[in-house]
Amino acid sequence: MSELTRKAEKLDAADELAAKRAEFVLDDVVYLDGNSLGALPVAVPGRLEDVVRRQWGELRIRSWTEGGWWTAPERIGDRIAPLVGAAPGQIVVGDSTSVNVFKAVVGAVRLARLTGPERDEIVVDATTFPTDGYIAESAARMTGCTVRPVEPSSLPDVLGGRTAAVLLNHVDYRSGRLHDLPSLTAAVHAAGAVVVWDLCHSAGALPVGLDEHGVDLAVGCTYKYLNGGPGSPAFLYVRADGQERFDSPLPGWNSHAEPFGMRPSYEAAAGAVRGRVGTPDILSMLALEAALEVWDGVTVGAVRAKSLALTDFFLECVEAYVPEGRVSCVTPLAHGERGSQVALRCPDAGDVMTRLIERGVVGDFRHPDVLRFGFTPLYVGFAEVERAARVLAEVLA
Amino acid sequence: MSELTRKAEKLDAADELAAKRAEFVLDDVVYLDGNSLGALPVAVPGRLEDVVRRQWGELRIRSWTEGGWWTAPERIGDRIAPLVGAAPGQIVVGDSTSVNVFKAVVGAVRLARLTGPERDEIVVDATTFPTDGYIAESAARMTGCTVRPVEPSSLPDVLGGRTAAVLLNHVDYRSGRLHDLPSLTAAVHAAGAVVVWDLCHSAGALPVGLDEHGVDLAVGCTYKYLNGGPGSPAFLYVRADGQERFDSPLPGWNSHAEPFGMRPSYEAAAGAVRGRVGTPDILSMLALEAALEVWDGVTVGAVRAKSLALTDFFLECVEAYVPEGRVSCVTPLAHGERGSQVALRCPDAGDVMTRLIERGVVGDFRHPDVLRFGFTPLYVGFAEVERAARVLAEVLA
Repeated sequence: MSELTRKAEKLDAADELAAKRAEFVLDDVVYLDGNSLGALPVAVPGRLEDVVRRQWGELRIRSWTEGGWWTAPERIGDRIAPLVGAAPGQIVVGDSTSVNVFKAVVGAVRLARLTGPERDEIVVDATTFPTDGYIAESAARMTGCTVRPVEPSSLPDVLGGRTAAVLLNHVDYRSGRLHDLPSLTAAVHAAGAVVVWDLCHSAGALPVGLDEHGVDLAVGCTYKYLNGGPGSPAFLYVRADGQERFDSPLPGWNSHAEPFGMRPSYEAAAGAVRGRVGTPDILSMLALEAALEVWDGVTVGAVRAKSLALTDFFLECVEAYVPEGRVSCVTPLAHGERGSQVALRCPDAGDVMTRLIERGVVGDFRHPDVLRFGFTPLYVGFAEVERAARVLAEVLA
Repeated sequence: MSELTRKAEKLDAADELAAKRAEFVLDDVVYLDGNSLGALPVAVPGRLEDVVRRQWGELRIRSWTEGGWWTAPERIGDRIAPLVGAAPGQIVVGDSTSVNVFKAVVGAVRLARLTGPERDEIVVDATTFPTDGYIAESAARMTGCTVRPVEPSSLPDVLGGRTAAVLLNHVDYRSGRLHDLPSLTAAVHAAGAVVVWDLCHSAGALPVGLDEHGVDLAVGCTYKYLNGGPGSPAFLYVRADGQERFDSPLPGWNSHAEPFGMRPSYEAAAGAVRGRVGTPDILSMLALEAALEVWDGVTVGAVRAKSLALTDFFLECVEAYVPEGRVSCVTPLAHGERGSQVALRCPDAGDVMTRLIERGVVGDFRHPDVLRFGFTPLYVGFAEVERAARVLAEVLA
C-alpha cells in the first residue's frame, strides 16, 4: 500500500460528509463529471414516480393547486437560496440558464439606465461559457448596447460611465478559476453599473454570498453540483431591493400580478415571481426538488472545505504519479482562486479522456486540449481521487 | 334508458378510436380538461423510470450521446410534425410556449424587415391568450415596433405596408373558436408580412396543415392534446425555406453550428435546430416522447371527425337537458369555426364548475363567466359526454 493510498484512507475516515455518498446512486466508476451532470440522488426516482402516477395520472389538473405545482418555481428557489447565500423570496427556478442569462442581462441594462440613460456597454467575461457571450450579444443588440469582452482580472480598467451591465462567471467552466465576487461586484457598483453573476460552476460547490456582497442579479444551473438531473431548470436571483424595478424581457403570464385574471395588459407581480415566464416544466422541477433534499444537514462551508481537500489531494497524486511534463495544470493552485474542479492540459486530451473513461474514470474533455475533472464533495471520496490520478498516470505513461 | 343514452351507446360502439382510451390512465371521472392538462399515457411512467434509473442513474453523462438526449429536441419535433402537417426538419421541442412566442415574433419581425425595413407593426389577435400579447409587447419594444390588437375577423382591414408580423391563435383558448388559418395566412402574405400561429389549442385536435398553407412560423404546447405532462416543453416550427434567414433573439449554445466547439462568436446552425437555446430539460422531454406513442396508427383526420362528433353530441345533450336560458354557448356552432372544446357562459360559472368537479365532471372555469369543456378524442367517449351534460343540468337546476 502506497503512502498516498494510506493518506486517502485517513482522509476518507475523517470525512464528515462521507455518509452523504449513500444518498446517491453510484457504482465503481470514479465519477468526476458532476460539474457536467450530477449523479442521481436516491430520493429522485420514487418522488418522480409519485409525481407522474399520482399527481399527474390521478389528480391531473387538480395538482396545479392541491399538489403545489403552481408555486414550485419560488418554493424550490427558496430551497436553493441558502446554498448561494440568499434570503428567501429572491430566487425562482425555471427555464434554461441561457434564457435566464437573457432575462438578467436585459434586466440589468434596464436597471442601470434608470439612473444612467446614456449607458450603452455590456461588459462580458471574455473567458465565459459561450452561451453567455452569445446571449449577451443578443441582449446588446436588442437594447442598443455594444458588448465589450474583458478578462475578469482587467475588469476595473474598462468600467466607466458607459457601462450598463457586467456579466461574469463565478468559476470559469474550462480552467476552474474562481473569480473574486466581492471585489468585482464592488468595482461594478463603484462604476454605477449593474452586475450579473453566472453561478453554474459554483452553486452547490462553494460559498457565494449573494446577499452579503450586494449582488444585483445572478443565474445558475441546477444539474451540476445541485444534481437536479439532465437539463433541470435553471434559477434566477433578483436582489430584493431591485425587484420592483426589475423589468423582464420575457413577461409571460406566470409573472403577472394576477395570472388567472387573463388580463389583456401586463402588470408585473411583486417579488421573485417576476422572473417567471411560462408554465414551468413540472417533471424536471419536482425531480430537482427531491434532489435538493441531500442538502439537509449540510453546510456549504463543509462542502467547500472538502472540495479544496479533494482538489489539493488530486493535484498531489497527479504530481506524484504522472510523468513530469506530461500535463500542465490550468487551474490555479491558490485556494482563493480555485473552484471545485481541476483542469489539466495535455495535447492528446481527447484521446486520453476516452481511455480514462474506458478504465472507469469519468471526467470530460474540453476542446482543444483540456482534461476536466469535477469534484462533487457530497459523493466523491479520497480513495477515488487517488485511483483517478493513478489511472491517469497509467494512461499517460 | 333515455334516447340520448342509447345514442351515446351507438356512437361509442361505432367509435374507431375507442380502443385508444386503454392507452391512458383514467378512472370514472369524466375528464373534459385535456385542453388544460392531457391525461397520463400508460407508456409514460415506465419510460421515465428507465430515463431516470438507467440513463441518468447508471449511464449518467454518457446518455447525452449514447442515450439520444442531445438530439431529442429535433427528434421529438419530427414526431410532432405530421400531427400539424409539417414535413420533417422544421420543428424543435424545448422551452415554454411563452419563450417560443418570443423567438417566433422577434424572428418574424426580422424576417419581414429583410425586404421591408420600414415595417414597424406587430398585429396581435386581441382575443389571444394573455401571454401572447404580453410577449408580443416585449418583442415590439425590443424591435422598435408597436403592437396593434385586432379581432381576427377584422385582420384584413389593418394589414398593410407597416405590418411586420402577425401573431394569431388557431383556436381561441376561451371561446373555442377556430380561426381560418389558410385565408388569414394568405392575407398576411398578401400584405408582405410574416405570420406566427399559436397552435396551443389545435395541435393534436384538428388538422393544421402548416406546410400546405405556407405558414412561416408556429408555436404550440404539448401538454394539452398531445398529453406530454405538466409543463412539458413547447415546440417551434420554422418553415424550411425561412430557416436560413431565421434570426433568433435567443441564440444559445444549443443552436450553434458547432455547439461543442465552444467558440466565442455565434454561428447559427442550419435547420430547425436553429430554434434551440440552452440545455433541454430531458426528463420532461422524454416523457413527452413516450406520450406521443399513442399517436401510432392514428390520423388527425379521424381525431377531428370524432372531436366534432363529441362536441356536437355535447351540445345536443346540453340543449336537451339544461333548462332554457341557463347557459349560452360561446363556441361557434359551425364546424369550420369550432375547435375541440365547448365554452358555455353562465353568470355563476365559478361556483358551477366547483360543483361539477365535486360530482366527477372535470372541466375548467375561465374568468369571469365561462365554463370550458375540452374533448380529447383519444380518450373521451360519448357516454361520458352524455353524463357530463346530465350532471351539468342537475347542478344548474
